[in-house]
Amino acid sequence: MKVLVIGSGAVGGFYGSLLAAQGAEVSMAARSDYMHVHAHGIDITSESKLGAYHFRPHTVVRNAAELPEKPDYVLLCIKVVENADRVGLLKDAVGPGTSIVLISNGIDIEDEIAKAFPDNELISGLAFICVTRTAPGKIWHQAYGRLALGNYPQGLSEKALELCKVFERSGITCVASEDIVAARWQKCVWNAPFNPLSVLSAGLSTNEILSTQESFVRAIMEEVCLIAEATGHPLPADTVNKNIENTYRMPPYKTSMLLDFEAGRPMETEAILGNAVRAGWNAGVPIPHLESVYALMKLRELGRGDG
Amino acid sequence: MKVLVIGSGAVGGFYGSLLAAQGAEVSMAARSDYMHVHAHGIDITSESKLGAYHFRPHTVVRNAAELPEKPDYVLLCIKVVENADRVGLLKDAVGPGTSIVLISNGIDIEDEIAKAFPDNELISGLAFICVTRTAPGKIWHQAYGRLALGNYPQGLSEKALELCKVFERSGITCVASEDIVAARWQKCVWNAPFNPLSVLSAGLSTNEILSTQESFVRAIMEEVCLIAEATGHPLPADTVNKNIENTYRMPPYKTSMLLDFEAGRPMETEAILGNAVRAGWNAGVPIPHLESVYALMKLRELGRGDG
Repeated sequence: MKVLVIGSGAVGGFYGSLLAAQGAEVSMAARSDYMHVHAHGIDITSESKLGAYHFRPHTVVRNAAELPEKPDYVLLCIKVVENADRVGLLKDAVGPGTSIVLISNGIDIEDEIAKAFPDNELISGLAFICVTRTAPGKIWHQAYGRLALGNYPQGLSEKALELCKVFERSGITCVASEDIVAARWQKCVWNAPFNPLSVLSAGLSTNEILSTQESFVRAIMEEVCLIAEATGHPLPADTVNKNIENTYRMPPYKTSMLLDFEAGRPMETEAILGNAVRAGWNAGVPIPHLESVYALMKLRELGRGDG
Repeated sequence: MKVLVIGSGAVGGFYGSLLAAQGAEVSMAARSDYMHVHAHGIDITSESKLGAYHFRPHTVVRNAAELPEKPDYVLLCIKVVENADRVGLLKDAVGPGTSIVLISNGIDIEDEIAKAFPDNELISGLAFICVTRTAPGKIWHQAYGRLALGNYPQGLSEKALELCKVFERSGITCVASEDIVAARWQKCVWNAPFNPLSVLSAGLSTNEILSTQESFVRAIMEEVCLIAEATGHPLPADTVNKNIENTYRMPPYKTSMLLDFEAGRPMETEAILGNAVRAGWNAGVPIPHLESVYALMKLRELGRGDG
């Protein structure tokens, strides 16, 4: 199994290392961290049973065009933010038999790729993980690690199942999902309130948000469920309650959007919120709380000089 | 006409000076600025035709109990924020014939005072003004100045009309309002979106907010109109459009809540938003956008260490 990981950030480095440990030939296309990763590989420190280990990619390139062969799978592990030229990054990596694997947050993030590569299999994936790039070639895996993978727009190909199996063998949970779009909505139920509220509150933890504004959080979650249902992906009736209960049980947690905000990086506002709001508008579902949070995030971005 | 102004901030100093210029005997109860105002009075620099002038109060005290006589009018010119002990401040100022005049932003700010002083006339007032205390005893009047005054809960007494007349003679517009509660809702239509959105966006001007999120602003304004109507104070049908048009015509403007936020001072979140939201809940009116903005302001306050 030949794999190319695009993106030498925390997600790509971590999941690439798991495939390599199972015998896959994992190469990596890195931009800002190319020099370090090419020379030294990646050091991963995991708080899980994986412990501390080193990952040396088979080949490290700046651009996928430099690879001698097209891979069986290309894992695109980058955030979906403005100026992320995902099609451009994939263009030189994809051959006739290459499956494209997107591991990213958000709603409706597949369509652009599906249209640009209509003849390639598209596998859409979600990572439930706390993992951080602490320096070039240094990754800190704090907690969790579960993946959900499935073909876009639906179904499970043999190649998707095969990839899941390799991930499972590596010791993480990899859920093979027949309806990955529903899984995205499921994740959005949590992301849509907690990511923006952590930013708009200027740094509150999930626990502080939930313990003071539970009914507001619930209202946002309910609206996400309404959109999921209206777009053909109904979520279980206990989805909101389970998300609330699980969040109370989690340790206080800084969301990925808050980490991006604090570091001055672009945020996944459009992928997580904007696309959800537009799906709601298209479906004619009333989503006033979600709309409000989206509008305020756009104002907050403008207030810090984005766009 | 004997007047006591409680609060030596910008609003009290400015309106007190206008009454004094018309021959009223205006005393002042000042706390933090007592030393300066007692020794030097107040210097006012106005960008209007009033120009620069000096206001020397008849008597300056730390506490109203020090005054030899009870005034005809006591003007309470302080922000309605947590820890503002308005009843305590008024207690020593109010005699049997004293009319209490509240000049403050917000919704439902009168009831506490009406209950504490059931035998005194209560005049409720709104100031439409840009005025800033730049240092102890220094006030900068940037623009506007209109007042609206009326008895709470409704009507216009002779003393209220008399006060209006004196303000009018001083050169500002003072609207005598038979339904001052409706006037509060009218002002809330503007305050409810622009004050919190300027804070939550971390400093955008009214113009930047409106030009990028007009439909969100309108949604909040419409909800305020719904509450006003449901509580017996219907506003004119063109209220939202007029507020939008006027704001586009205003120069870019920093809201009072943003100024308080940037200075680390308590904000009028409860007076402006919380009380409006509770009125909406009591009336059974759907106000999801307003609720969202209120919840986010509470989170933002918590995020900066309030409460």
